[in-house]
Amino acid sequence: MSNRKIPYKIHLSEEETPKAWFNVRADMKTGHRPMLHPATLRPVAAEDLNPVFCRELVRQELNDQDRFIEIPPEVWDFYKMYRPSPLVRAYCLEEALGTPARIYYKYEGGNTSGSHKLNSAIAQAYYAKKQGLIGVTTETGAGQWGTALSMACGYFGLECRVYMVKISEQQKPYRKGVMETYGAKVTPSPSDTTNIGRKILAENPETGGSLGCAISEAVEAAVTTEGFRYVLGSVLNQVLLHQSIIGLEARAALEKYGEYPDVVIGCAGGGSNLGGLMAPYMADRLAGKKAPRFIAVEPASCPSLTRGRFAYDFCDTGMVTPLAKMYTLGAGFMPAPNHAGGLRYHGMSPIISQLYHDGHIDEARAVGQVRVFEAAAMFARIEGILPAPESGHAIRVALDEALKCKETGEKKTILFGLSGTGSYDLAAYMQYNEGSLEDHIPTDEDLEKGFAGLPKVD
Amino acid sequence: MSNRKIPYKIHLSEEETPKAWFNVRADMKTGHRPMLHPATLRPVAAEDLNPVFCRELVRQELNDQDRFIEIPPEVWDFYKMYRPSPLVRAYCLEEALGTPARIYYKYEGGNTSGSHKLNSAIAQAYYAKKQGLIGVTTETGAGQWGTALSMACGYFGLECRVYMVKISEQQKPYRKGVMETYGAKVTPSPSDTTNIGRKILAENPETGGSLGCAISEAVEAAVTTEGFRYVLGSVLNQVLLHQSIIGLEARAALEKYGEYPDVVIGCAGGGSNLGGLMAPYMADRLAGKKAPRFIAVEPASCPSLTRGRFAYDFCDTGMVTPLAKMYTLGAGFMPAPNHAGGLRYHGMSPIISQLYHDGHIDEARAVGQVRVFEAAAMFARIEGILPAPESGHAIRVALDEALKCKETGEKKTILFGLSGTGSYDLAAYMQYNEGSLEDHIPTDEDLEKGFAGLPKVD
Repeated sequence: MSNRKIPYKIHLSEEETPKAWFNVRADMKTGHRPMLHPATLRPVAAEDLNPVFCRELVRQELNDQDRFIEIPPEVWDFYKMYRPSPLVRAYCLEEALGTPARIYYKYEGGNTSGSHKLNSAIAQAYYAKKQGLIGVTTETGAGQWGTALSMACGYFGLECRVYMVKISEQQKPYRKGVMETYGAKVTPSPSDTTNIGRKILAENPETGGSLGCAISEAVEAAVTTEGFRYVLGSVLNQVLLHQSIIGLEARAALEKYGEYPDVVIGCAGGGSNLGGLMAPYMADRLAGKKAPRFIAVEPASCPSLTRGRFAYDFCDTGMVTPLAKMYTLGAGFMPAPNHAGGLRYHGMSPIISQLYHDGHIDEARAVGQVRVFEAAAMFARIEGILPAPESGHAIRVALDEALKCKETGEKKTILFGLSGTGSYDLAAYMQYNEGSLEDHIPTDEDLEKGFAGLPKVD
Repeated sequence: MSNRKIPYKIHLSEEETPKAWFNVRADMKTGHRPMLHPATLRPVAAEDLNPVFCRELVRQELNDQDRFIEIPPEVWDFYKMYRPSPLVRAYCLEEALGTPARIYYKYEGGNTSGSHKLNSAIAQAYYAKKQGLIGVTTETGAGQWGTALSMACGYFGLECRVYMVKISEQQKPYRKGVMETYGAKVTPSPSDTTNIGRKILAENPETGGSLGCAISEAVEAAVTTEGFRYVLGSVLNQVLLHQSIIGLEARAALEKYGEYPDVVIGCAGGGSNLGGLMAPYMADRLAGKKAPRFIAVEPASCPSLTRGRFAYDFCDTGMVTPLAKMYTLGAGFMPAPNHAGGLRYHGMSPIISQLYHDGHIDEARAVGQVRVFEAAAMFARIEGILPAPESGHAIRVALDEALKCKETGEKKTILFGLSGTGSYDLAAYMQYNEGSLEDHIPTDEDLEKGFAGLPKVD
């Protein structure tokens, strides 16, 4: 039994647990450009957003002043049931790699929803309840966000209407099952419950649906149903705000043992997980202090940061949402079928995009899924946790950084985000086990097609 | 935010974590009757068991002297990655029920295998590795034990051959997928890799297999393959020993806040979870001190304690194993399809059986699955964890006890075991959600058929 000074899992007591979210926007000297109204192309104001989103969430969305926003007691009571999430020193992995690096990971997959999405879902459901709403609508593809929101609504006694991409609903009946167990109403999209759904069905009755279509249906259902609003699980500022709990807990835990990361690594699809993990350390960077090197990891099949354009674009494929200034492949870009469903998004959080554009996020790295699954399967055996394919992207780069340290002898401290469990992704692991997994790298021509659809706005 | 003296989750530091398993047999004045060799009907000795099981595990199986057995450092290193498991004060549930009772649960479902089975799997794999074996064989039905063992073997670099009931292998491809990701070789049973498998296939080529057949194949494969032994995930004394970590941690956590349970509740199929949870408190009972009331909860569809016979019987349906004195429905009893696969066992751990026979386990209660799923779904919404159907049995009785306290005004302290996650059981929840779940209660005639097959031994 090793007598190690730092335990395998660093624990935070309730007293040590963060009581407020951290709003990184307050520290950004160059704020990101405002969202634009899709019809007027003028910056959206609260009154534009209030019919769609809960009032308090709109305030948070537009808030670039307050550094800390108190976590409501009712949300904290829920957090306490599954948080603080484990901050793990990966001793077994370090030993297996023979690296002098110290590797830490923050594991968000231990709750029933299986990912970090619950951190924002419970906050959004709380504000909806507080506003006296009857319920919320949303869309879900793979099902992580829909599951998290169903749990949150079940807890607060809110109605939850989930538009689930039809092909996913057919392929993942159990995801639907868990949402229904938490009381959600799951509708395969496109459906005949909305105008946009009926229109799409009329044009193409056999379609399996798409996330863009599900978003459009969920928004329409929200604005046309009394007492309902629409909620979203990534990309938005409010979501990154709520997800800051990940980084705040990680930092509090590491500071108990005098640890400060040299490198912070997170996978990035819409940006909620990386944005949350890095937030409190980004504050150091923005204040000109010593700070970690930040690495965003994205799938080579959907490389918005590494190969996208920094431009105004729609947040959805259906092109009904406001325009955001972000790294994007174009709202019409169709990523190849890749197993990290949570990273298959054409754009990137405006906060992450601006920080990357300004050089505060040091590096974006695109990795192919075969090397991702190699790393994920290795991690599963050594550290006893089967990672979500999304999280596997962060693991891949953490391994590569640790192996670099082995070559150079550097004793770097590496922190990465393990955002979810792979328990719902076994079809992908089985393909990997059989050796039939392939990488899908878009050609420059593929990308040009996506860019061609970008709105002409600057 | 409530300022509660006792936190939602009571944490144990590495120093406070138990370093030895507790062997309840050492405290039992009436030991359970010895296992008998199926051919000679004489008590089995180490030399009978050594060809089948690892040497050190045989020692543990027969050890009724040592109260504490040190957890090997290598096992402790693995435990530290996922243990201590959460000991949760169910504040939200107490509030929802309006009960004066204080409810605690020990949650074992947060690890990748999804249940408490990993606690024994890692120990058994370690002893196999230490003995210099190449690998181990086992059977699995629903897949919890197979997954846990695959993880343990993956960690120690042992070969793992799992005979999986063919119908389960077809219905649960993802369970097979996770085992293979951890490097296990999964063979649908019956198979043509063993004599017994070939015999069964010849007689009935279309059979979907059974746990009894899979056990027989796994044992045959172990004894006929150089460097292999057979391992088992429940029923045996060694398994209850390893699972005592559950109860030891729970007790250490509760004692930090001066809490002592009035009632301890666990579901019981083979008995590994209840046996582990109650072990350190049972020591108080056996020493004549103040002790909790112990309640074993079993499915009404497979009621070994409440309606079975206390008799010598085979541990497997195939009737090749030694005979154990236990509460049993007869090795030939075929329980109706019930969703708590882990509780669908005809017998019961000899330790649990003897303690119940001697009145040290105060009560066994059989509950129908409809009321179990009602409780499980309610718990999921209120406490944010989707329980395994097996664990739902304990929840059902914990709720009933808490509601009794509401009537009487008693402020009892209730501790129950939440042995696993329901993430792999959504087909069952979906049936419950649709209202198509039914109870299957065996008639007295059904039970008589099972008893008729009991061997004539006493």
